Amino acid sequence: MSNSGRSAYRLSDIVHRFGGEVLGDADVRITQVATLEAAGPGEISFLANRRYRKQLEQTRAEAVIVAAHDADATERPRIVCDDPYTYFARVSALLNPPSAVAPGIHPLAAVQASARIAASAAIGPFVSIGAGAEVGEGSFVEAGCALGDNVRIGRGCRLYPNVSVYHDCVIGDRVILHSGAVIGADGFGIAWDGGRWKKIPQIGRVILGDDVEVGANTTIDRGALDDTVLEEGVKLDNQIQIGHNCRIGAHTAMAGCAGIAGSTRVGRYCRIGGGAIIAGHLEIADRVEIAGGAAVPKSILEPGTYSSFLPAAPHREWLRTAAHIRHLDALVERVRTLETRLAEMEGKKNG
Amino acid sequence: MSNSGRSAYRLSDIVHRFGGEVLGDADVRITQVATLEAAGPGEISFLANRRYRKQLEQTRAEAVIVAAHDADATERPRIVCDDPYTYFARVSALLNPPSAVAPGIHPLAAVQASARIAASAAIGPFVSIGAGAEVGEGSFVEAGCALGDNVRIGRGCRLYPNVSVYHDCVIGDRVILHSGAVIGADGFGIAWDGGRWKKIPQIGRVILGDDVEVGANTTIDRGALDDTVLEEGVKLDNQIQIGHNCRIGAHTAMAGCAGIAGSTRVGRYCRIGGGAIIAGHLEIADRVEIAGGAAVPKSILEPGTYSSFLPAAPHREWLRTAAHIRHLDALVERVRTLETRLAEMEGKKNG
Amino acid sequence: MSNSGRSAYRLSDIVHRFGGEVLGDADVRITQVATLEAAGPGEISFLANRRYRKQLEQTRAEAVIVAAHDADATERPRIVCDDPYTYFARVSALLNPPSAVAPGIHPLAAVQASARIAASAAIGPFVSIGAGAEVGEGSFVEAGCALGDNVRIGRGCRLYPNVSVYHDCVIGDRVILHSGAVIGADGFGIAWDGGRWKKIPQIGRVILGDDVEVGANTTIDRGALDDTVLEEGVKLDNQIQIGHNCRIGAHTAMAGCAGIAGSTRVGRYCRIGGGAIIAGHLEIADRVEIAGGAAVPKSILEPGTYSSFLPAAPHREWLRTAAHIRHLDALVERVRTLETRLAEMEGKKNG
Repeated sequence: MSNSGRSAYRLSDIVHRFGGEVLGDADVRITQVATLEAAGPGEISFLANRRYRKQLEQTRAEAVIVAAHDADATERPRIVCDDPYTYFARVSALLNPPSAVAPGIHPLAAVQASARIAASAAIGPFVSIGAGAEVGEGSFVEAGCALGDNVRIGRGCRLYPNVSVYHDCVIGDRVILHSGAVIGADGFGIAWDGGRWKKIPQIGRVILGDDVEVGANTTIDRGALDDTVLEEGVKLDNQIQIGHNCRIGAHTAMAGCAGIAGSTRVGRYCRIGGGAIIAGHLEIADRVEIAGGAAVPKSILEPGTYSSFLPAAPHREWLRTAAHIRHLDALVERVRTLETRLAEMEGKKNG
Repeated sequence: MSNSGRSAYRLSDIVHRFGGEVLGDADVRITQVATLEAAGPGEISFLANRRYRKQLEQTRAEAVIVAAHDADATERPRIVCDDPYTYFARVSALLNPPSAVAPGIHPLAAVQASARIAASAAIGPFVSIGAGAEVGEGSFVEAGCALGDNVRIGRGCRLYPNVSVYHDCVIGDRVILHSGAVIGADGFGIAWDGGRWKKIPQIGRVILGDDVEVGANTTIDRGALDDTVLEEGVKLDNQIQIGHNCRIGAHTAMAGCAGIAGSTRVGRYCRIGGGAIIAGHLEIADRVEIAGGAAVPKSILEPGTYSSFLPAAPHREWLRTAAHIRHLDALVERVRTLETRLAEMEGKKNG
Repeated sequence: MSNSGRSAYRLSDIVHRFGGEVLGDADVRITQVATLEAAGPGEISFLANRRYRKQLEQTRAEAVIVAAHDADATERPRIVCDDPYTYFARVSALLNPPSAVAPGIHPLAAVQASARIAASAAIGPFVSIGAGAEVGEGSFVEAGCALGDNVRIGRGCRLYPNVSVYHDCVIGDRVILHSGAVIGADGFGIAWDGGRWKKIPQIGRVILGDDVEVGANTTIDRGALDDTVLEEGVKLDNQIQIGHNCRIGAHTAMAGCAGIAGSTRVGRYCRIGGGAIIAGHLEIADRVEIAGGAAVPKSILEPGTYSSFLPAAPHREWLRTAAHIRHLDALVERVRTLETRLAEMEGKKNG
């Protein structure tokens, strides 16, 4: 990343904004963030994991962000704070503001006459916007996005290229939708009717709260009857599938490739690991953590961490293990037989 | 959903069309379907799962659809029928017909001169259609779809925004393709050739039968040599991956995030659960049900239900279980030793 | 596939290019490849798996490609070579060259004035190209692709419809990106800050080496600070997710639906099976093979094959097995008790 033309901040400016304490020269000027390994002049780095302490010693960063217990591990100018990772996040956001967007509707967009586009919104080329749709102030809808009839996009949103939002869905303020995300496609609702599947119209909507972020190629289905709802601050990584009529509580985060079947309610402040699968019609309590790759077939009503994945082993070893698993029933039977025979012997012995 | 301007049907009209019997006022007018919990004036609901019987008692729905054994569980006007869920599907389809589409080609579409677009078809903005392609009567290709050369789309199809169909693929009648679906991308065909991968041209096509539905961001690869085929009535949910040269039998349904590797044949009337994985070059018989999250490495030749997923457990408990699994080989050995030692003692005892 | 107008090659031409030996009539003319089962006049097939030897006997192919030990299994004209599958790949590539593309920028593309498009490149309709972007000689960017500011696309690339490449990403030469692929979306970088998630700007890029192929709807996230890198010749199937700051070594191939969390380094010449999940911050050595469906929570430092998936079993049987797995802790305890009791008896016996 080129640093030319970037805003520069002194360490003293930064602690003035975000707190913490400067050790060393508070006047060094920072223009960008970088890793300990890659940082150079004008760049600030951070140490959040003591594993990287060696890199801290060797870094050529202009300055670093450290916790109190690492304050002496470098002589570079440094900011000492409680939580270096979060502090770094704030500094990075300060140094890397969203790029400014020129408002207006591209001449190669197709916007229905009844749609209302705020004056400060930007609509890119090849965007189609349906009848009765709304795009709020400061929102940016990039090239190739398609918004159905009556879609509402709040203020300060960003839709990256090629996002599809089906009719009637409602997107809050400051929502980010990455490329290829599909919001409001039909839920998987079919009924077996006389030897073939009959499609059930999906008449609910998708409602995304404020500050939701949806990763690339993630899909969130519209409700069958009621709405599918993601509350404020929910963060979804890429390639996640959310079934119809799910409700995801505020500030829950889900990593890539996770999937939730229909009508499940996930609580607030949950963390769902990558590739985890949650069955339909369940209840997951607040503050539940599901480890990556876990499969959840039943409701989880207590906060805590839940797992179920089997670590890969060398293939031959795994084949033996898998065979043992297949024959566990027989093994249990053998143990039961041993118990009986041994009890019999013990009885005789003592008899 | 607003009910204004909707068609209204009397219960008597409905049973006239779909059978069943009315108990209570057959003249109440229905305009929409809803859940037992949310339904209000003009809305009909249904009870398909006795778990929700309490909601039936409290519903404010104008009318309900129930099975004979629940006919007395409410005094609301009701339709009594054999299968309330399927009956509800029919009523919902009646009340929520596909929205009418204005035929014609949008001025911002790019349609090759040799393509044939039926007079009653609708082509949205930013749609590209290749040479020799065809779109049948009443089909609607929405914004941003791309159809390659010689693609054939049947009658009454709907392609939601941003669908990609590669050259030469053939789509039947009344097929629905949701946003982000990719039909006919190259299969994963590579050969190791002198220290690097050589790409094998994928010269087969994808053939989708009538009444197929394909979910958002689902991908179906074209065949390497022969075609990849989905027979009529196959229903695929979102984010499913179908490898090259697969054949999926009529009326099989697959839930989200499932995947099938290349050259596998799945029978008719199968049901594949969410996230299930099926290896390549297998044969799956008719009427096989694969549970969500299962992994299928071998052919399944008998109808029935097959599973293999491990339910998530509290993390510490799971760590112990996973360790036991890793050491099953040793456990089996310990049981074998016990058996030998005990037999020896029993021998001495009786000897 | 129609063969009309195709180039024809004599078997003698083919061995002249690729080596091997002709048995039978070296003058037969070949226009296309096909399976043993489907091949007819003018078509060449191959036998790579002895399982299909019966089909070789019955094939109506004009000619076949076989290994020396199968040279006598047919009397058809044949090419005898060391590796029929790779040989077939070469012949197929010869007979099915990429279709020629008419250079130029479609009038319905939106290309920023500062972008540089090579004279022999082709830009389809509804393509948007940002400021400072470059597209190299002979590259073809199909309908609906969106390239952000400063994106660089090398020479001889093909981007199928509706690909999104975010700003500043760098794509090598001869790279293929299939429809729906998203290159350079933000990595999943969030920090917990005072009761809500704070987004961490993702300022790295994605760098794709020469000859990389990326499947449909696959997503590769841009780096948080440093870049995400796929080295030359990496082949990714559909619906794969690559987290931010991963590095994938040259000539590694990954099958569909696999996922790698952030900051993991995968070596060269690895093969990752379909649906495999690799956790973040790991190191995978060169020439590691991960079986389909495996979960990798720890670094793998030795070449070899690693697995962990449980094969689906009939549902009732699986329920018993799953219950046994849940109770393994108790089973191990029972075995331990048996061992103690037996040792005690043996002690008494011998005492």
